Amino acid sequence: MRVSVIGGSRIGPSDEATAVEVGKLLAQRGHTVVCGGLGGVMESVCRGAKEAGGTTIGILPSEWRADANEYVDVAIATGLGHARNGLVVMNGDAVVAIDGGGGTLTEVGYSLVFDKPIAGIGTHDVEGVEACATPEEAVEFVESARE
Amino acid sequence: MRVSVIGGSRIGPSDEATAVEVGKLLAQRGHTVVCGGLGGVMESVCRGAKEAGGTTIGILPSEWRADANEYVDVAIATGLGHARNGLVVMNGDAVVAIDGGGGTLTEVGYSLVFDKPIAGIGTHDVEGVEACATPEEAVEFVESARE
Amino acid sequence: MRVSVIGGSRIGPSDEATAVEVGKLLAQRGHTVVCGGLGGVMESVCRGAKEAGGTTIGILPSEWRADANEYVDVAIATGLGHARNGLVVMNGDAVVAIDGGGGTLTEVGYSLVFDKPIAGIGTHDVEGVEACATPEEAVEFVESARE
Amino acid sequence: MRVSVIGGSRIGPSDEATAVEVGKLLAQRGHTVVCGGLGGVMESVCRGAKEAGGTTIGILPSEWRADANEYVDVAIATGLGHARNGLVVMNGDAVVAIDGGGGTLTEVGYSLVFDKPIAGIGTHDVEGVEACATPEEAVEFVESARE
Repeated sequence: MRVSVIGGSRIGPSDEATAVEVGKLLAQRGHTVVCGGLGGVMESVCRGAKEAGGTTIGILPSEWRADANEYVDVAIATGLGHARNGLVVMNGDAVVAIDGGGGTLTEVGYSLVFDKPIAGIGTHDVEGVEACATPEEAVEFVESARE
Repeated sequence: MRVSVIGGSRIGPSDEATAVEVGKLLAQRGHTVVCGGLGGVMESVCRGAKEAGGTTIGILPSEWRADANEYVDVAIATGLGHARNGLVVMNGDAVVAIDGGGGTLTEVGYSLVFDKPIAGIGTHDVEGVEACATPEEAVEFVESARE
Repeated sequence: MRVSVIGGSRIGPSDEATAVEVGKLLAQRGHTVVCGGLGGVMESVCRGAKEAGGTTIGILPSEWRADANEYVDVAIATGLGHARNGLVVMNGDAVVAIDGGGGTLTEVGYSLVFDKPIAGIGTHDVEGVEACATPEEAVEFVESARE
Repeated sequence: MRVSVIGGSRIGPSDEATAVEVGKLLAQRGHTVVCGGLGGVMESVCRGAKEAGGTTIGILPSEWRADANEYVDVAIATGLGHARNGLVVMNGDAVVAIDGGGGTLTEVGYSLVFDKPIAGIGTHDVEGVEACATPEEAVEFVESARE
């Protein structure tokens, strides 16, 4: 399935390691990573997925595919600015949120709107988000929620 | 100024009274109400604003202006579906949130993204949202935040 | 009714005079002008409408209402870039096109998609656009098409 | 490179054969097909590309990836309705237009807006569109324009 991974565009080493690990696990289990295509969590999760031989889709706010980070396989330009956040969520079957601020909060909201199971690691504490302690737990949650 | 009022599209009598009162207060103080143009909080806040002689703008998810509730003065169709949520927030100078689920959460997130002061009455408990007990308190907060 | 007026953002004196006249006529007949809110035809038609005491709506590509020209009464920010072109057409009951390049061509296309009567003055020669020689002719066409 | 192929969603056998052939040629030359993901020209060009072992991207108007035709490899849901037309063009390096009505005309306009070389086969006769008689001619034009 496709899993949308959302989170902060500026992150520290710990969240970076988490995002890389989420990407690896998703790829190892045969899932495609969907994200916003830029830096921070978006780049780290794509890097992890590619290191494990997976596939990544980046849905960008700008009109330029070249804005995608180097680990994005299929870059989709939108030119929609922050309105592209809904598209990131819409194109996954489930969602994993890592850290994140206001933009991530819009995506958590869209996960509820579009009725996508969502696991959170160190992110917004919102009803409907399954709080998980580790990448393994988060990936297992979204897999079980979609079985 | 313009104040975006966001919240649930299906609400009970208490939230309805709150939304009507927020609309009245905003209109009495010379502010224009911006909302998503449909039912629930959106309709109640517009009704309150019109009862006090104010002006209302409704930014709709559909392609049809006729979908606006009867208290909307300027209906704007977008055809964007849930992606129109960002536009509701973008078009206010400040935001008041009342109740609300996933859609409202996206708009709370957009308030943070677009750096709009946001007051909340019985809504999501999120850092950056000023929790207010009454319509008066909420309106005073957004006014003071924009002074 | 609402009439969307579309056309080039950089125009010469002749198209400017045409756009001003279209704005005046629409306002004198009680119609609201909808446009893209920026310069060229958009600004001239708003100026004409305001000189005749009319009302104008500007639907902007950027996230900032302040980008609207000074003759726009109700500025709507979208942050959608060129995707806002569809919204300009969607929010009118009919369309008048003056001059214009690629952006105007997208709006001519949207007029056909949304089944809006469209009059053209010195614009793209496309089937479905009623070629008119003067502002009077264009305004009369859109009025008669919506009767 | 990526080539966006646009055109009517309801087509006759002749345009269908043309679209299949365009898809085949693009795939044989190593290009990825981008389209709107639905029926008519969109489906035929994807079918041709897949028959020749190529890759296809479909950018859909709805919120549901399942709306994509069966020859789309990477389906992108947008929920934007007709506003997704700009995204179809934005995601190609060049454009081939076959037949088509109002929706295709918006995409021809976006090709000019985004400065993408565009070849047309039996489509709108608009300045800036290179009129081509055959799929071979159209594919050669877009290749040479991007060299």
